[in-house]
Amino acid sequence: MTVKRVPVVARILEANDRMAGEVRKRLAAAGVRAINLISSPGAGKTSLLEATIPRLASRMRVGVVVGDVATTRDAERIAALGVPAVQITTQAMGGACHLEAAAVRLALDRLDLSKLDLLVVENVGNLVCPAEFDVGEEAKVTLLSVTEGEDKPLKYPRTFRVSSLAVITKMDLVPHLRFDLEALRRNLRKVHPKLPVLELSAQTGQGMDAWLDWLSGLKRK
Amino acid sequence: MTVKRVPVVARILEANDRMAGEVRKRLAAAGVRAINLISSPGAGKTSLLEATIPRLASRMRVGVVVGDVATTRDAERIAALGVPAVQITTQAMGGACHLEAAAVRLALDRLDLSKLDLLVVENVGNLVCPAEFDVGEEAKVTLLSVTEGEDKPLKYPRTFRVSSLAVITKMDLVPHLRFDLEALRRNLRKVHPKLPVLELSAQTGQGMDAWLDWLSGLKRK
Repeated sequence: MTVKRVPVVARILEANDRMAGEVRKRLAAAGVRAINLISSPGAGKTSLLEATIPRLASRMRVGVVVGDVATTRDAERIAALGVPAVQITTQAMGGACHLEAAAVRLALDRLDLSKLDLLVVENVGNLVCPAEFDVGEEAKVTLLSVTEGEDKPLKYPRTFRVSSLAVITKMDLVPHLRFDLEALRRNLRKVHPKLPVLELSAQTGQGMDAWLDWLSGLKRK
Repeated sequence: MTVKRVPVVARILEANDRMAGEVRKRLAAAGVRAINLISSPGAGKTSLLEATIPRLASRMRVGVVVGDVATTRDAERIAALGVPAVQITTQAMGGACHLEAAAVRLALDRLDLSKLDLLVVENVGNLVCPAEFDVGEEAKVTLLSVTEGEDKPLKYPRTFRVSSLAVITKMDLVPHLRFDLEALRRNLRKVHPKLPVLELSAQTGQGMDAWLDWLSGLKRK
């Protein structure tokens, strides 16, 4: 995704920012906060939500907008938890590698915002494109699984720089990998020195409490 | 990445196809075959090459062009094996989520093609964008690690449909995962019924022989 020195792309980004402003205004009016969940394919966004939503139920009412190139699998997984879920497939938009605010705005029409405290926008699995597009969220949260290696923050710096939180997932797999957790922490600090980092496992529950606290404490932008 | 019904993007893709034709002609003239290696971030492209290149040395002389948004880490890892490696960083091009043929053509100028039998283009870690861009290869090879889950072929169908081979990586981790290998195989068949599939582990060497044989048997396009 080229984002500089190409007028047509600059116009797309400006239009997206305007639309994101509208989404943000509608969410704020309804008292709903929002996060934009970003990661590589298979880093565990949906699994994390499956572990999160039941544990959060006593504190926050959650709704989810899920982006994928194709399939409605993830929205079905979320809906099975008994919370509202809307799937956006970007295949109809040429297979876009990210969600844009316009699509999230349309998804809001399918949700009863008066019954939500938190909207999670689960973006298309991608560590490059979603970083460029505000979808009206309070915070971008980037997930990175331990199986992806220590160097990803250095290789995809922009995504981590625009994030308000990094979540290292699949911590239960560390004993089975040649993986240097301290190197990953160091690389995260290199690209974004003040980025809060949580380490968790949706399978074992490790680190889930800190994540739930972070979500509960999310402030309006 | 929008690819249909947007004239400016259609022109970009046409220009890329012309440039890919030039790359292909130059490689053919030098007797060099090429593959375009695609996967999510951290699926193990570079680790597979580290395991492949020494084992292939008696059969083929390999050169590598590596694409990343940022860093020259992967080219350094490949160069440490004693083979020529050229790094393309797309950060200078606005952080593109894929390699284009024009960049590969420039990279060819840094390689002595008369000393190569196989050029591996290791694309930017991404399961969406690289599928659209021919870089002059004989075959696109898509890697998918077992930690990414069974559903990725369904969610990123185009990438698998344009591939000549799928390689399932990190097979050594299967015992530690809730993972249904048969479901992954079934999903691969759903999106591309005739796609050959190899299952391997760069760590244990499982499946490496079949992969080396596939590379050795690669036919010119």
